[in-house]
Amino acid sequence: MYTVDLNCDLGEGFGNYRMANEAEILSFVTSVNIACGFHAGDPSTMRETVQLALEKGVSIGAHPGLQDLVGFGRRNISLKPQEAYDIVVYQIGALQAFVQSEGGVMQHVKPHGALYNMAAKDERLAMAVAEAVYKTNPELILFGLAGSELIRAGKTAGLRTAEEVFADRTYQNDGSLTSRLQQDALISSDDEAASQVIRMVKEGKVMTRQGTDFALRAETVCIHGDGPHALDFARHIQRELQQAGIEVNSFS
Amino acid sequence: MYTVDLNCDLGEGFGNYRMANEAEILSFVTSVNIACGFHAGDPSTMRETVQLALEKGVSIGAHPGLQDLVGFGRRNISLKPQEAYDIVVYQIGALQAFVQSEGGVMQHVKPHGALYNMAAKDERLAMAVAEAVYKTNPELILFGLAGSELIRAGKTAGLRTAEEVFADRTYQNDGSLTSRLQQDALISSDDEAASQVIRMVKEGKVMTRQGTDFALRAETVCIHGDGPHALDFARHIQRELQQAGIEVNSFS
Amino acid sequence: MYTVDLNCDLGEGFGNYRMANEAEILSFVTSVNIACGFHAGDPSTMRETVQLALEKGVSIGAHPGLQDLVGFGRRNISLKPQEAYDIVVYQIGALQAFVQSEGGVMQHVKPHGALYNMAAKDERLAMAVAEAVYKTNPELILFGLAGSELIRAGKTAGLRTAEEVFADRTYQNDGSLTSRLQQDALISSDDEAASQVIRMVKEGKVMTRQGTDFALRAETVCIHGDGPHALDFARHIQRELQQAGIEVNSFS
Amino acid sequence: MYTVDLNCDLGEGFGNYRMANEAEILSFVTSVNIACGFHAGDPSTMRETVQLALEKGVSIGAHPGLQDLVGFGRRNISLKPQEAYDIVVYQIGALQAFVQSEGGVMQHVKPHGALYNMAAKDERLAMAVAEAVYKTNPELILFGLAGSELIRAGKTAGLRTAEEVFADRTYQNDGSLTSRLQQDALISSDDEAASQVIRMVKEGKVMTRQGTDFALRAETVCIHGDGPHALDFARHIQRELQQAGIEVNSFS
Repeated sequence: MYTVDLNCDLGEGFGNYRMANEAEILSFVTSVNIACGFHAGDPSTMRETVQLALEKGVSIGAHPGLQDLVGFGRRNISLKPQEAYDIVVYQIGALQAFVQSEGGVMQHVKPHGALYNMAAKDERLAMAVAEAVYKTNPELILFGLAGSELIRAGKTAGLRTAEEVFADRTYQNDGSLTSRLQQDALISSDDEAASQVIRMVKEGKVMTRQGTDFALRAETVCIHGDGPHALDFARHIQRELQQAGIEVNSFS
Repeated sequence: MYTVDLNCDLGEGFGNYRMANEAEILSFVTSVNIACGFHAGDPSTMRETVQLALEKGVSIGAHPGLQDLVGFGRRNISLKPQEAYDIVVYQIGALQAFVQSEGGVMQHVKPHGALYNMAAKDERLAMAVAEAVYKTNPELILFGLAGSELIRAGKTAGLRTAEEVFADRTYQNDGSLTSRLQQDALISSDDEAASQVIRMVKEGKVMTRQGTDFALRAETVCIHGDGPHALDFARHIQRELQQAGIEVNSFS
Repeated sequence: MYTVDLNCDLGEGFGNYRMANEAEILSFVTSVNIACGFHAGDPSTMRETVQLALEKGVSIGAHPGLQDLVGFGRRNISLKPQEAYDIVVYQIGALQAFVQSEGGVMQHVKPHGALYNMAAKDERLAMAVAEAVYKTNPELILFGLAGSELIRAGKTAGLRTAEEVFADRTYQNDGSLTSRLQQDALISSDDEAASQVIRMVKEGKVMTRQGTDFALRAETVCIHGDGPHALDFARHIQRELQQAGIEVNSFS
Repeated sequence: MYTVDLNCDLGEGFGNYRMANEAEILSFVTSVNIACGFHAGDPSTMRETVQLALEKGVSIGAHPGLQDLVGFGRRNISLKPQEAYDIVVYQIGALQAFVQSEGGVMQHVKPHGALYNMAAKDERLAMAVAEAVYKTNPELILFGLAGSELIRAGKTAGLRTAEEVFADRTYQNDGSLTSRLQQDALISSDDEAASQVIRMVKEGKVMTRQGTDFALRAETVCIHGDGPHALDFARHIQRELQQAGIEVNSFS
């Protein structure tokens, strides 16, 4: 029996700025990554988002980002491993307080944006993030790019990890995602995206842009919750996975 | 036997900005209130300050403030009780993560600056703060101005509270502190300050600017850690309390 | 011949957060108030918004707000007049640099949100704002609530002023707007709103909630650019004003 | 006759955080670079610092930095040239408003920290910064590392430039500064530092760590205003320059 988790980012508003229709994606995913106030999110948005996720029975993770609200945490910042450790502890703690005060239990941590990407490649940064998670709460599962330094660091630190794959992104032959600056970074066909995910889950392989297979584990699939097409895409992926005999479940 | 806690604010730097000689005050106080990133403090400063306090065996509390770094959390902001609740949960959580990850246990929460002052007078704000503390961690002790709405709200919420008095501030006949905008807000004589504290602890009374006694409980005394005179003052207060047969101890 | 200006706020996004359909409102207004980075707006959004307004030939003003991004500048902050002066100079300067570097000329300054409301009532704050405008650029026109302290302060400082009225808000018998916390704060009928504006422009009077007339000058009308109904409302007001023989023009 | 400018950073406080003894360095320098609110500085600090510089007759420049208060603008951020352009226009405008409103004239722009360093090497970033300066005010002088891309970009954009050298930093054989992460980055002997500056000014050469001479122009010398030794060092450099027959003057 195959099983996989579907995750999406949530709570990415800030103050007066609200992301549209965030609640609806909750019907199609099994885990959510909630912004913690650095790249997006503010205390009130965090509480409301936690309440929403708990209502819908979706597993909750912290989504810590860089201190870069204006860049939405997508710009690389040359921070030291110790700084990465500190911002991850801080943000996990902040979200954990909302989850616990609402009677829930946090499942995982998934770094956001540039922090996710830098920690996928930089071993020292990856170890700093993994240790931050472990020391804050060793029961948390660390989500990271399948096959990345972050996954390795998580295992080294003693954490349970979840290797993440992307439905609508293409892969390079080293297992990295094709940069969004490239033309063929995105998979626009829903069927192609679903097929890619199914093959990653069942066969542990993805066909890269270079035409070779890359071996990876697919334990959780990243779904985007925003954009006009997001809900249709999420519904499609969820249905195709089930028809392929893959159970969709979180880790909790 | 009389006993009282001596507390001071700590970790009030931000990024490159460091408060001078913060460590030294730790020899004279029994509890510290650590800034949580909103009015002061950043993740790295918070971790370092927690480590320092644990080393010195001083009890740790969160010092949540308003989202007003440029105003150091000292300017009133017309926030809603729900917003106050949310920023307090967030900041307690962030600091708690550092305390727990360093192997410590948090003792208390003391709101900072304008949040402290507003919650002393505004019943709804006081209840929001108290509930935020209780729901995040019901074991935490809520520090508030002696006789204030915040103390009442803490008790109503089911929290243990600590009534705070000020050594170097004068009182009005309603138990509020004389505004710093007034000339006689501060007590400049160390002996006078010590006497005021000793009387508050032993007799439960303070002589107000209006010449009448105000009855209050003195469970913790606020000491300032900054300024050229801070250490001498802290040393003096500590010694005078002990000579008056008052034990200086935190609540943990 | 009657004439009035129609103004709306613009450039209220921040980083990744964009306000929808901002450009369309430009066809219906003659002046825009561009956010300057404190309550909303960031440097890139400011440049893009200035370019858009210049393309459309709409007059540009700075829309300085309080340092409160998470509260969108809508929460009162107890700042000193000197602080108000300083944040207004700063924000006008920042926007002016974009206007000048794009070959335009700034027309006016309209404080935002809580700063607007506080300066309408507080004489010292009003004078600080007016002097900030005057000292930064004495050619700028100061927009303020009709009949308010801010208008008086602008005249005292030697500035040209524009008295602002609201199409869809009801008035109290002291000329203040009915608080949004009250039920009858908003006028939901477009026809009623248009009639109120036309009467304010032509007769210099508005019927208050208390059933009495309040005398005011209507030199510029505030139109909201966001919300699903904004464009229809703007179109309606513009058309009704023209049919009533009122020319719609900015001050430049 | 030789002449050179001595510049230092100023106004690097933020809110409650004040840099000690900033005023005293003004007796020894001819130009100051004032922080503009992104990496340091806030509106009130900016105004006060401008007033101080004008009183002392020191030439004023804007010191725009990255949006990174917690990192003091010293961490590289992977921003796009357009973003660099926008943040530079914004910050120049903000400071210019204070200078003009106090009756002064701005002399120059010197990017801060990571922005300075990135623009020294990255041609596209350098052009973005130079164009931002030019379009905001073509009379401004662009300060940049001697021989860097930023100086080249300034000349290309049509700006007057000032090539900057460092008294207390060692050089690499490509004209770059030795990284602070290296042991021999700093020159600790005041005499050695003075000799290096005098040779750069008179001979247009600096001896690099690799033992070869690097040719450069020295039009302005960076002096640090903070640290316990700053004033003594500034006094020493100033005196040594004068004894070597080098006039110390700004460009205004």
